[in-house]
Amino acid sequence: MSGADTVAKSGFSESDQLAINTIRTLAIDAVQKANSGHAGAPMGLAPVAYTVWNRYLRYDPANPHWPNRDRFVLSCGHASMLLYGLLHLARVAEKDGGNAPAISLEDIKQFRQLDSRTPGHPEYHFTTGVETTTGPLGQGVANSVGMAMGSRFLNTRLNKPGLPLYEFDVYAMCSDGDLMEGVASEAASIAGHLRLSNLCWIYDDNTVTIEGHTELAFSEEVATRFLAYGWQVLRVADANDAHAIAAALDTFKASHDHPTLIIVKSIIGYGAPTKQNTSKAHSDALGEEEVKGAKRAYGWPEDKQFYVPDGVYDSFADGIGKRGAALFAEWQRLHDEAKKADPTHAEELEAFLEGRLPEGWDKDIPVFPTDAKGLATRESSGKVLNAIAQHVPFMLGGSADLAPSNKSNLTFEGAGSLTPLNPGGRNVHFGVREHAMGSIVNGLGLVGLRAYGATFLVFADYMRPPIRLASLMELPVFHIFTHDSIGVGEDGPTHQPVEQILSLRAIPGLVTLRPADANEVAEAYRVIFSLKNQPAVLALSRQPLPTYDRSTFGAASGTAKGAYVLADCEGTPDVLLLASGSEVQLCVSAWETLKAEGVKARVVSMPSWDLFERQDQTYRDSVLPPQVTARVAIEMGTVLGWDRYAGSAGTVIGMHSFGASAPIKDLQKKFGFSAEKLLEAARDQIARGKK
Amino acid sequence: MSGADTVAKSGFSESDQLAINTIRTLAIDAVQKANSGHAGAPMGLAPVAYTVWNRYLRYDPANPHWPNRDRFVLSCGHASMLLYGLLHLARVAEKDGGNAPAISLEDIKQFRQLDSRTPGHPEYHFTTGVETTTGPLGQGVANSVGMAMGSRFLNTRLNKPGLPLYEFDVYAMCSDGDLMEGVASEAASIAGHLRLSNLCWIYDDNTVTIEGHTELAFSEEVATRFLAYGWQVLRVADANDAHAIAAALDTFKASHDHPTLIIVKSIIGYGAPTKQNTSKAHSDALGEEEVKGAKRAYGWPEDKQFYVPDGVYDSFADGIGKRGAALFAEWQRLHDEAKKADPTHAEELEAFLEGRLPEGWDKDIPVFPTDAKGLATRESSGKVLNAIAQHVPFMLGGSADLAPSNKSNLTFEGAGSLTPLNPGGRNVHFGVREHAMGSIVNGLGLVGLRAYGATFLVFADYMRPPIRLASLMELPVFHIFTHDSIGVGEDGPTHQPVEQILSLRAIPGLVTLRPADANEVAEAYRVIFSLKNQPAVLALSRQPLPTYDRSTFGAASGTAKGAYVLADCEGTPDVLLLASGSEVQLCVSAWETLKAEGVKARVVSMPSWDLFERQDQTYRDSVLPPQVTARVAIEMGTVLGWDRYAGSAGTVIGMHSFGASAPIKDLQKKFGFSAEKLLEAARDQIARGKK
Repeated sequence: MSGADTVAKSGFSESDQLAINTIRTLAIDAVQKANSGHAGAPMGLAPVAYTVWNRYLRYDPANPHWPNRDRFVLSCGHASMLLYGLLHLARVAEKDGGNAPAISLEDIKQFRQLDSRTPGHPEYHFTTGVETTTGPLGQGVANSVGMAMGSRFLNTRLNKPGLPLYEFDVYAMCSDGDLMEGVASEAASIAGHLRLSNLCWIYDDNTVTIEGHTELAFSEEVATRFLAYGWQVLRVADANDAHAIAAALDTFKASHDHPTLIIVKSIIGYGAPTKQNTSKAHSDALGEEEVKGAKRAYGWPEDKQFYVPDGVYDSFADGIGKRGAALFAEWQRLHDEAKKADPTHAEELEAFLEGRLPEGWDKDIPVFPTDAKGLATRESSGKVLNAIAQHVPFMLGGSADLAPSNKSNLTFEGAGSLTPLNPGGRNVHFGVREHAMGSIVNGLGLVGLRAYGATFLVFADYMRPPIRLASLMELPVFHIFTHDSIGVGEDGPTHQPVEQILSLRAIPGLVTLRPADANEVAEAYRVIFSLKNQPAVLALSRQPLPTYDRSTFGAASGTAKGAYVLADCEGTPDVLLLASGSEVQLCVSAWETLKAEGVKARVVSMPSWDLFERQDQTYRDSVLPPQVTARVAIEMGTVLGWDRYAGSAGTVIGMHSFGASAPIKDLQKKFGFSAEKLLEAARDQIARGKK
Repeated sequence: MSGADTVAKSGFSESDQLAINTIRTLAIDAVQKANSGHAGAPMGLAPVAYTVWNRYLRYDPANPHWPNRDRFVLSCGHASMLLYGLLHLARVAEKDGGNAPAISLEDIKQFRQLDSRTPGHPEYHFTTGVETTTGPLGQGVANSVGMAMGSRFLNTRLNKPGLPLYEFDVYAMCSDGDLMEGVASEAASIAGHLRLSNLCWIYDDNTVTIEGHTELAFSEEVATRFLAYGWQVLRVADANDAHAIAAALDTFKASHDHPTLIIVKSIIGYGAPTKQNTSKAHSDALGEEEVKGAKRAYGWPEDKQFYVPDGVYDSFADGIGKRGAALFAEWQRLHDEAKKADPTHAEELEAFLEGRLPEGWDKDIPVFPTDAKGLATRESSGKVLNAIAQHVPFMLGGSADLAPSNKSNLTFEGAGSLTPLNPGGRNVHFGVREHAMGSIVNGLGLVGLRAYGATFLVFADYMRPPIRLASLMELPVFHIFTHDSIGVGEDGPTHQPVEQILSLRAIPGLVTLRPADANEVAEAYRVIFSLKNQPAVLALSRQPLPTYDRSTFGAASGTAKGAYVLADCEGTPDVLLLASGSEVQLCVSAWETLKAEGVKARVVSMPSWDLFERQDQTYRDSVLPPQVTARVAIEMGTVLGWDRYAGSAGTVIGMHSFGASAPIKDLQKKFGFSAEKLLEAARDQIARGKK
């Protein structure tokens, strides 16, 4: 195979081929220099990715944040050098209208080194032009479904006749690994259901996995599977065939009623003399000899590294550069026109672009009256959610088929269900697909929408990867997790979270809130909507919780500080009673008893450990005075982690096992969650403190 | 619809119909009495479940643990009353050969009450006859794939010509929710790949979900999807059609090269006058009027509750009872014959039945020599795993396409890959399907095999639901999680676990082990193989770790106690240095410096918090003397939870954010993991302690 033959066979022009081989060799050299990474997929996929970028993508490299740009997702994130090469060669700017490149040639030379813009896997926020963080397989393609839904949603909500402001397409490149992951299956089923014809997945069918040939574990008929989901399925028999790639992409562009899967047969490590088409080409540096051999195959100077031949930058400037600039200018013209035509519309457009909450977004958040019986926090959540959502048009979400239980439906007029024929609906029906829900919510968040998901807290386990990624990406999405303890009752241990709250608290950056009553719920939502770069989760009760009298108790606004004094005594307390959520009522009950006995007790409501940790030492010490070591913490979840607040000498009442199936009262008794047990522990603590 | 009409239409005999309606009404009455639960699915599915049980299932109610019994999995666990009704009416015994029933009529009356054998969702171990714990959707069907693989494995490993001791089939009933879950998709793909013709899924296509009609979120062509996976797909147009059900099951029994999906159109809440075929029939008590109406429709006495008409028990005794007794007797004869024919075979058969490790299973576990450079714990794990596996024939496992990285392959002669044509292979290739891997490993464990999975620790997030269920079911399966910290290096934050170890430690009953060197790895495996009713996970390093000199340091056997003194001083220590895994080397290094300076320091290696918590107070205090409050704990994971051991006054050095992409040395510096930082903290602690 010589360079000339390749060109003749491929249908790519000489200059196209030069650009394609530049992408390949940059990947090869970067991986070789870093001595780690994955060059095999970039080598195989370069012609396809080049075609998408330089011929199809509606993207202005000078304005990488243009909101109507087509999105390109590299779901097989390990092939990051493919994306970095494109971002570099297309001269994608670091900032809209700026001169500095998102990725310089130096960055490519610093592939996978500390602080370089070229980390091992693409990271959103960190590198301009990366549309989502990928690496954990299946996530990128699932995100792309959310992005395509978001495009449709914006289209419906923000376009006016003759002013097509939002109509972007979403491309996702993926590997066999992506398509083996269940989350991709779930997301593909939703995409087919919603007939997202603006979505195109390009499947790198290179038949090689880490353990060997895909036949080892993956013999299903992928095309048939996607036809079952309601997708259009196209094939490209050779990743180097320019005409076939173009024909497939043209067919995608022309389709209007189905998402598209393009199955591309590629050769992993294309050009590497002995490693191509083997699992040895998947990862790690190819080695000097293979590198030279591959360069020879491309007709490349063997001894040059990080070589960008003359004309390659120009190819991109003439392709994506010119096309993107024209599209961006036209869009700006339309945008200005739209703003001039209608001031209300103008305000909507601006608010969306700035990610701004509309004036008065929180004006209907209720103040819940004192109520000894109270209501479940899932109930108050439903009320607060609706009070906010009716004023926040760029907000949508839904449940994994538990909306009636999660109280997560938006019920005000005009909310509607998001369906194939109503893509602007505010209620998304995710089906029993928690994992895809999490990833789709991220995709919606990535195009600038306020998105949320909902399920039972125990099933947060099904969607931890996207929750983690939301936090890593600093996306202000959120999830409503109800049925947050053994308080679930009869459904039993499979449905009763024990370790889930702690496991969520452990995710860096994630704001975890477990409010104690309806007014803490209201404050929790204020916290969530004030977040700009953190996701949040709510843990809410199935069972009713009393609404506290805030005229005598601490204000619910303390929620924003993570922990605050709810009920107090005169002077230094003899004992601190700490809890979150539904167990705060046990503390209050014990506090009342102790107070009547003349014991000085303090109840600290701790809806959010992570918010509390962000307060200064003075505030933290004012809530939990260091000199008061007589402490009892109580939570119907694992005891793990509470030692931090209960202290070495304190008592933690929590779960040490899974729950059981029984009415809630029987469970509370069985597992020791009662005001009596708490009182007993408090008295022991006070006695110990006095010793 | 009258009772007589139903019979005429259905093809079921009068006595069949009576049994079917008994199943239905027991479910109705149990849910009504408990005022919670799900009667809708049992009402719809009763004819199918009855047919499977009374006509097909090779199952002896008198010997419910017969190892060659067909397995019946109720994946839609919320329909638990369907299973409880069957277990009761078929008089499944609580113990093999015992007289007490697994489920009495009283148990059914106590549905969902504390300590009754009829919890909200079926619980393995807790209720005899329940083959796996279900409720979290998708898990049961995925377990069933592992069970069917296990049947094939045992068939290959334990049968001799003319002695078909293991050849059981696996039936799984499932709902649309099961089939929407990604884990089910992953598992179905594997089942098709492995051509598991002993596996039959029966899909309750009732078109109703909690949020409404399945069309809201689920419009894919399920049949086509399963054809793509390589399954045979059959249809039953009416769940009440006896002939159609039998024809489909006969076709399943006759097939020998594909798993079977039977799509059954059923009516949720069949017979309930106004609620049938609506989402109102999914859950909760039907209400008095609907109950009466349904009973009228069945030709049932309206006012009788928990009514089992004459002849119903006999129907089951004549069906499954007789068939099962004959099959069991024949199997016992074959088993005796096999044992007589060949003493080696006899020993194998007995060892498997008793779940016993063979004599000398651990004799080749290496003792690793002192080595300052050492080896990665993933490397030592690979060696120990192989040393054990070659002696434990009923052990199999594999990786989610990361075997070369996880070092999880069994490489000794005869291990082989498990493939369609080699179902007795010891190396399972799960593909990039972590979630199904976890669930299939559970299925393998449920049929008595020692099964394991492997992936990167960060991807444990993809498979938390089955890990949790393994613990709830008390299954001694295990997982090898390598690349256990930011030590992953260049792959970056998407691949670097931070919160995962803590999140695993938080799962009740799960044994979490993060060994510090090769000899702790060896001991960790001894712990894992001694477990009878707990799953375990190993967190292992990518990077090399020194092998300690055990002639001067504490013995690695301390691993079994969860934490032990690795390096010590004379008398009471001035400071305790605590760590697990790769950070123990930092403690040892700091300890050497302090020792040289005459400071009394102790290094405590803490490979397993949960094992340590199970030790008595005396041991725990001997390792962590309460009077020594100068303590530093260090782990390259979240700081959360370490306060328990570092104490209120101690210092915890850990992660407060996600990691980054860079060589490991740069990351250790960036995030403060060095012997110098540790020394600094230790000195501060000592100074504070002396104040």
